[in-house]
Amino acid sequence: MDPKLKAYFESTLKEVSIDCVIFGFHEGELKVLLLKWKGTEGWSLPGGKIYLEESVNDAAVRILQERTGLKEIFLQQFYTFGGNDRYKNMDKAALFRKLEWAFGADFYDEKYMKRHVSLGYMALVEFEQVVATPDWYTDECMWCEISAIPELLFDHNEMVEVALKALRRQLSYQPIGYNLLPEKFTMPELQRLYETILGKQLDRRNFQKLMLSYDILEKLPEKRTGGAFKAPFLYRFDKEKYDRAMREEILFAI
Amino acid sequence: MDPKLKAYFESTLKEVSIDCVIFGFHEGELKVLLLKWKGTEGWSLPGGKIYLEESVNDAAVRILQERTGLKEIFLQQFYTFGGNDRYKNMDKAALFRKLEWAFGADFYDEKYMKRHVSLGYMALVEFEQVVATPDWYTDECMWCEISAIPELLFDHNEMVEVALKALRRQLSYQPIGYNLLPEKFTMPELQRLYETILGKQLDRRNFQKLMLSYDILEKLPEKRTGGAFKAPFLYRFDKEKYDRAMREEILFAI
Repeated sequence: MDPKLKAYFESTLKEVSIDCVIFGFHEGELKVLLLKWKGTEGWSLPGGKIYLEESVNDAAVRILQERTGLKEIFLQQFYTFGGNDRYKNMDKAALFRKLEWAFGADFYDEKYMKRHVSLGYMALVEFEQVVATPDWYTDECMWCEISAIPELLFDHNEMVEVALKALRRQLSYQPIGYNLLPEKFTMPELQRLYETILGKQLDRRNFQKLMLSYDILEKLPEKRTGGAFKAPFLYRFDKEKYDRAMREEILFAI
Repeated sequence: MDPKLKAYFESTLKEVSIDCVIFGFHEGELKVLLLKWKGTEGWSLPGGKIYLEESVNDAAVRILQERTGLKEIFLQQFYTFGGNDRYKNMDKAALFRKLEWAFGADFYDEKYMKRHVSLGYMALVEFEQVVATPDWYTDECMWCEISAIPELLFDHNEMVEVALKALRRQLSYQPIGYNLLPEKFTMPELQRLYETILGKQLDRRNFQKLMLSYDILEKLPEKRTGGAFKAPFLYRFDKEKYDRAMREEILFAI
């Protein structure tokens, strides 16, 4: 086995790993970052291992930084995947044969290829600022609309679904959008973000009323011009109020 | 080392474990089940290991069943604890010396005492139906009010706090109470449950209005009698509607 790869396996946890669902919002669609495994046609979520002395949260931040180039990422654990067969219907032998083609015949070592429990983290990132970077076992990156995600390796389709469900739940107690929208945005753009996460259309007037009731938006004197319709007002988040709403959560409002 | 203990360690994951925050509601107070470690004065949450071929969710169900005797438990993962020093300020050596006193001098084996990443599960149980049962490393059980929890071993105080926060969040998208209250209950009893979870008093009229708006309660023709005050109406959950609200979640209601 390649000495660098062996050193990486030796210095990391053997039974635990991290996988990341990185959400970006682009052209009115919620997208997820995927990586293609070397020598295969298999796509997966970005992921990695945890160094023996590293906390899992630090490892998640490091892995995301390595994959996206972003330093300040809103990142959170959403679920830990510990099925006893996370390879599901995959042909595991065939996958490892392909990886051997890319990494050498001694790539597969039972000692390092144990059953892994994977901690799922999700991040919301500014699409425009991401420099997607493959890692040692992948050679291609792709942003994929959540409605068009192909069959992924392992249990990664389930991971995307669970992350999306967690994101939906979050809308009921925390604001969203700061890391997903440009600094200035219109109310229809914010609504489109919510709609793409919830997977359903929302009533325009009720949406605006609810958003304004959170008291986290600042209405700007400018308008978005250039469109075919009446120019809509621009808003931006009041960062201080937004952060307080994130911390205190909008809980059971009675 | 005791052969049974060794066999248990050999047949379970080495780097991953499970800890459970078991909530019960009793005499108007939210309580948590704690266990005292043999030969020590140290209290911890109930927990256990995962068999090599067992899914983590199955392991959590098994562990909870072993500790409470309950088969149908509402159980969910709430967070995974993976700090690189989960012993915090504890005197780890002193703890293991005490355990050696109880389990024999060869109890401590580096091979089995690696850093553990622990999956936190929480359960809401009917207090009256629980038969709390210590396991191989503990010899006493205690239900403890969440406002009076002593200093626990490892990072277990943090676990209780994070579980409570997750439970609070849950109130914003799912109903609660079916596993915590007796079959028939009054509106003030339901309100007391919410108040003890949220740690704050709620307005009686707004609470009742919100609860009835969920359309999961059935008002019974009977009243609770025997109290000093005006007899309050009794309610019970409409199980079908309750289950649907659990499944569909009360999300972002616009």
